[in-house]
Amino acid sequence: MEEPTDPDVAPAPDLRIRIVFGGVGMLGPGKADLLEGIARTGSIAAAGRDMGMSYKRAWELVGTLNAMFARPLVERTRGGPGGGGAILTPEGIEVLALFRAFEHQATVAGSAQLQDLQNRLARGPKAD
Amino acid sequence: MEEPTDPDVAPAPDLRIRIVFGGVGMLGPGKADLLEGIARTGSIAAAGRDMGMSYKRAWELVGTLNAMFARPLVERTRGGPGGGGAILTPEGIEVLALFRAFEHQATVAGSAQLQDLQNRLARGPKAD
Repeated sequence: MEEPTDPDVAPAPDLRIRIVFGGVGMLGPGKADLLEGIARTGSIAAAGRDMGMSYKRAWELVGTLNAMFARPLVERTRGGPGGGGAILTPEGIEVLALFRAFEHQATVAGSAQLQDLQNRLARGPKAD
Repeated sequence: MEEPTDPDVAPAPDLRIRIVFGGVGMLGPGKADLLEGIARTGSIAAAGRDMGMSYKRAWELVGTLNAMFARPLVERTRGGPGGGGAILTPEGIEVLALFRAFEHQATVAGSAQLQDLQNRLARGPKAD
């Protein structure tokens, strides 16, 4: 079902929530999207590519994530960094789900404030 | 009252929430802290300095904020950019309060997920 297009109605705001675990690391939309991409593509390189991220950067982020949690979130399934596949571990699936649930809870709980802020934004010149 | 220091208990996670108003701009912890600093110091330059931000950058952010909302959030009280003071307008006070309320709501609503994620973090080697 298509949304009606009304230039006077701004799109719903997006939240970019980064959780900073003091001293240990942080978890935000970039790492969550990368985990999701790995689950979808079965490959760290492909997941990074889908996000416009260099191969090196995607591997670094996976290394950071695996070091940050007590149990690894991503596991290589075969071969080396050059050609191997990768999957989320059960822990990776749970961490990703927790982050997405957190984003959802935040959006729902703060919807009154979000709407109020949105109503105060500048608009283009009105016809009337 | 001081919190007991226990190396086994990680500090509570901080949230860095950025609200992206598609096409119009975004509002996050940096801009909110700057608004708070202006309210406290009565000066854009001083507020920026407290955040380790250049004079130029603080002024740019205020310009961005004022253009982003239908009514200005910050008003100069006297003089030019060189020596004048600045205050939050009633709209600025309300927008800041809405953002802080939103952060609070998000933290409260997502506290179960936050705690669960935190429990999964890597810890240093345990004594026992």
